[in-house]
Amino acid sequence: MKLALDAMGGDNVPAEIVKGAIDAVKKFSCEIVLVGNEIKILEILREFSDWQSLPLTIKHTDEVIEMGEHPADAVRNKKNSSIVVATQLVKSGECDAVLSAGSTGAAVAAAQLILKRIKGIGRPAIATPIPTPEGVTLLLDSGANVDSKPEHLIQSGIMGALYVEHVLGKKNPKVGLLNIGEEETKGNEQAKETFQLFKNMTTINFTGNAEGRDIPTGKFDVIVCDGFVGNVVLKFGEGLATTIFKLIKEAIDAGGVGAKLGALLLMPTLKELAKRLDASEYGGAPLLGVNGYCIISHGSSDAKAICNAIGLANEYVNRNVLEHIKTALEQELRAKD
Amino acid sequence: MKLALDAMGGDNVPAEIVKGAIDAVKKFSCEIVLVGNEIKILEILREFSDWQSLPLTIKHTDEVIEMGEHPADAVRNKKNSSIVVATQLVKSGECDAVLSAGSTGAAVAAAQLILKRIKGIGRPAIATPIPTPEGVTLLLDSGANVDSKPEHLIQSGIMGALYVEHVLGKKNPKVGLLNIGEEETKGNEQAKETFQLFKNMTTINFTGNAEGRDIPTGKFDVIVCDGFVGNVVLKFGEGLATTIFKLIKEAIDAGGVGAKLGALLLMPTLKELAKRLDASEYGGAPLLGVNGYCIISHGSSDAKAICNAIGLANEYVNRNVLEHIKTALEQELRAKD
Repeated sequence: MKLALDAMGGDNVPAEIVKGAIDAVKKFSCEIVLVGNEIKILEILREFSDWQSLPLTIKHTDEVIEMGEHPADAVRNKKNSSIVVATQLVKSGECDAVLSAGSTGAAVAAAQLILKRIKGIGRPAIATPIPTPEGVTLLLDSGANVDSKPEHLIQSGIMGALYVEHVLGKKNPKVGLLNIGEEETKGNEQAKETFQLFKNMTTINFTGNAEGRDIPTGKFDVIVCDGFVGNVVLKFGEGLATTIFKLIKEAIDAGGVGAKLGALLLMPTLKELAKRLDASEYGGAPLLGVNGYCIISHGSSDAKAICNAIGLANEYVNRNVLEHIKTALEQELRAKD
Repeated sequence: MKLALDAMGGDNVPAEIVKGAIDAVKKFSCEIVLVGNEIKILEILREFSDWQSLPLTIKHTDEVIEMGEHPADAVRNKKNSSIVVATQLVKSGECDAVLSAGSTGAAVAAAQLILKRIKGIGRPAIATPIPTPEGVTLLLDSGANVDSKPEHLIQSGIMGALYVEHVLGKKNPKVGLLNIGEEETKGNEQAKETFQLFKNMTTINFTGNAEGRDIPTGKFDVIVCDGFVGNVVLKFGEGLATTIFKLIKEAIDAGGVGAKLGALLLMPTLKELAKRLDASEYGGAPLLGVNGYCIISHGSSDAKAICNAIGLANEYVNRNVLEHIKTALEQELRAKD
């Protein structure tokens, strides 16, 4: 796989992105084009004596899309921004996939405007893997689009199931619809209509409504929702986990010798657990529904998260998921005719 | 305060409800009418030798609304169900407030049909207190209504702010709108329209959009959202906390002697923290916007949660919050004319 990596998108750029790329080319069979400010990228690369022997190249750009900008306008106006140039590299066929930890809105807009949507898809969806005790639950859409129509949620369900099957290797994945109750009469208009459409589908394993409490347990392999709800849920989960760990740390610091010794003894066990639950172990979320491989990482990604996201991009491309999705959608469209 | 307590609503009824009532009448200055099956209630009461000296009475009912029933239909048809009779006791003036841990939908429907809405309120809202390191953030609506219009969210903001001010004692509370970004251009149609309405209000301290990650941190005192999103968020939080603690326990069980000793030493600190974060410390959520005091508790409430919810009902009634809300809404309506 040859990856176009947006070296300027994220909180710690380009340092963490470049370091993640160096780890990744050593770990996975891939080539990486670092897209961004050449001087700044070289500054980091030179910290690694062997970098010139690695399959890394630089594509210089001098514009950056900031977090506050209107995504589609910024993509249209800043033709020489790192995310636009990186996405163009996929469009031209020079690279197989694009990965960015910058503005999610800009990455989605660039993918939609440059790569275009797959036939049969009204709106692309970000598919975020949520770590669970059973493995992973894919939550989509987690923020690419809001006010989605029921057919868009159905398309997300189809794409999510295919992704889980081909990338995560789980056959016949259980697909749930995020809702406020188990019964099919529950929910807002969007959820009630979507339930009826899902119920009549034979091509995916729809197993009913998923409630909020089902997201972290692994009861479903794929949970489908509107991007507004998905974004709120994901950020709430982040905030909650951070708050809980901060409070545990404060409590230990304020506690006696017993608490401190206890924390010390328990640490290896908790670290192992934290690793299992760490979202950065997955590193990135694919944007499904566009005609090309696009992976979106969290703005706060460090080198480890970027390296893991590159590993995920590798799997995603090598398993030909895009072709599987296209074929499935063509079958769906034919079945409708 | 005299409370109508639905003794038949919840997972462990009537035992936990009755036990919670006994604790509450000893702890708070209140009278309680236990509404439900007299034989079953007496069975529990008789475990307490002093129960006849306590300010407890029983109102017998022989119908129960189950979780799966259509709420409004069930309320209309089961005139002798515990939640309907309990709500009628408030309507008739015999009791000051009603509390139920049964079907939320049925409690909301009973309140709407029997107590009616306050003038100026299009839809009532459940206001759930979320424990944070700073105290509490009130999330509303957390499930009474879905597909709310922007004006309903504004009404929730007004009611939530008054509740925080008068019951939780925080002056000029910060009100946020749950959204997928900080900028006012972000969000779905509902959120964008609501933002504009909030921005032009001078009667409440609107401090902008709240993201999912802001819910558990205490950055806002009141967070307003549609009941669909609020319900998903609350249940996700429950599921996530349960999953994390289950995994910590499993990790400790599977760990070595060090981990077990560490857990033992750390336990008092963690228990103190868990208490601070325990939602059952608040026990219940007021249903704001109906013309009467109605408190909704979680189905899994134990005696402690019920007792705490009764304490909350006590504060809610004694501080005359309903009158404050009515006055504020009349002012809003007059300002609009």
